[in-house]
Amino acid sequence: MQVLAVLGKGVVDSATPVVQPDDQGLTRGDGCFEGIRIVRAADGTARVHKLDRHLTRMARSAAGLGIDFDAAPWRDLVDQACFAWTGDTEAAMKLVHTRGGADGEPVGFLTISAVNPDFARQRLEGIRVITLDRGYAADAFADSPWLLGGIKTLSYAINMAAAREAERRGVEDAIFVSSDGYVLESTTGTVVWSRGRSLRTTPTGATGILAGTTQDLLFDAAARTGWEVGEQLITLDELHTADTVWVISSVRGPVDVISIDGRHRGRDRAVVDEIRACSGF
Amino acid sequence: MQVLAVLGKGVVDSATPVVQPDDQGLTRGDGCFEGIRIVRAADGTARVHKLDRHLTRMARSAAGLGIDFDAAPWRDLVDQACFAWTGDTEAAMKLVHTRGGADGEPVGFLTISAVNPDFARQRLEGIRVITLDRGYAADAFADSPWLLGGIKTLSYAINMAAAREAERRGVEDAIFVSSDGYVLESTTGTVVWSRGRSLRTTPTGATGILAGTTQDLLFDAAARTGWEVGEQLITLDELHTADTVWVISSVRGPVDVISIDGRHRGRDRAVVDEIRACSGF
Repeated sequence: MQVLAVLGKGVVDSATPVVQPDDQGLTRGDGCFEGIRIVRAADGTARVHKLDRHLTRMARSAAGLGIDFDAAPWRDLVDQACFAWTGDTEAAMKLVHTRGGADGEPVGFLTISAVNPDFARQRLEGIRVITLDRGYAADAFADSPWLLGGIKTLSYAINMAAAREAERRGVEDAIFVSSDGYVLESTTGTVVWSRGRSLRTTPTGATGILAGTTQDLLFDAAARTGWEVGEQLITLDELHTADTVWVISSVRGPVDVISIDGRHRGRDRAVVDEIRACSGF
Repeated sequence: MQVLAVLGKGVVDSATPVVQPDDQGLTRGDGCFEGIRIVRAADGTARVHKLDRHLTRMARSAAGLGIDFDAAPWRDLVDQACFAWTGDTEAAMKLVHTRGGADGEPVGFLTISAVNPDFARQRLEGIRVITLDRGYAADAFADSPWLLGGIKTLSYAINMAAAREAERRGVEDAIFVSSDGYVLESTTGTVVWSRGRSLRTTPTGATGILAGTTQDLLFDAAARTGWEVGEQLITLDELHTADTVWVISSVRGPVDVISIDGRHRGRDRAVVDEIRACSGF
């Protein structure tokens, strides 16, 4: 860990434990988080990618969990952490907000860590994925707010188990598919696909998937450069027929999928370059 | 918190933070836990309820997550913590095992805390419950080990959200029902029901529910006193026709359900007393 900062305290020694043993963020996965990319800009300052989008989503996550959230002190903390960061390329910033312990006081902290060294290669070479059944039907979250659809909680054990399953099968990621056969999201990213000059992603809401901040940025930028963008629920069979398929997340960035369940996909270098640029990578 | 003890360190000051900020138990809910009842016995020693069953289940959880687990040091730690415990009635012991942080070293610790003061009244008066859709079909976990069925992970945010939903609706707990209408488990307990001299609970396995240690103890003891026991998948409609309905967990103990979704249920004092006794309460 390169930097550790705590709400109400500022930057602290990176070996400082910040969460008490009875914090429900730890004992119940009861809290929310964001993963954010920071880069060293040409002028020497640390630039935080789309902080507004991340803080907006974190506010929504906290509200869904009934945890108080105020963006202003988080902005200050991000500023302080970036000032303390000495890295010269890029890093992963994680914001964590827990429900707190027996005293009922939520805990907020952020870490800055090295980017997974595999990501640079994945951005360049693309990734192979498997698909895994997520167990839920594509409309399972429509009327069940207690299932926490769309909320980026700390309860990510299933996502991590799916990522381990992908690794076990020798590929870089897994795309979750609903029990009724629709494409959802990857273990830690949004799925996007293209056909001609149209870009699509899975709708949020009833599917329970997370709204992607990088996908949102991409769609805004792509719409300005002539792409037609939108949401669509499609089956895995339909995904196979897309021109390009992407898994998009904030720190890894957009990576194009070069095989799905062992079915090889061709790559379109021009589209790859364009999607990368529109995503700020 | 009354006692805090850490694997490899023993009992430590209860204000000691034990988990680093990048521990995946904290940032990903990636770890497992057990909740165990301890009581002050007549001879003055602390008695730990069914420790073997809990450690067996925790070993299974850790194996399912691919986290190394060794019961022997946990037994020592439980002994040390019980020796340090000065309470004179009962308490809740929680064992937590995380995947660890960037150094990859798992962290194990236990806490001893006061039992929720509502539990004594709930044991006496029973509880009212609502039912909530869990989103999964009753066979969703059959071929999807990455969904972590039957594993008591730290990723409990949905269980906690369902408990808050129950509180919001003015009742004490929620029973999860599968998307296809079958009874699963409560937010933190096993569902058991009786008809005449038969006791039933929902099967584990494809349903993804947790194997209950107290339900297991109850069924063993009940079978020795003339009950016929077993597993059965039933619908909510069928649950309504049971003689008695129970939510059973280690610290709260067996509590009988006196209303489901506002439908009042009669109580059978003789059965209540018998089930309590068979469960060690």
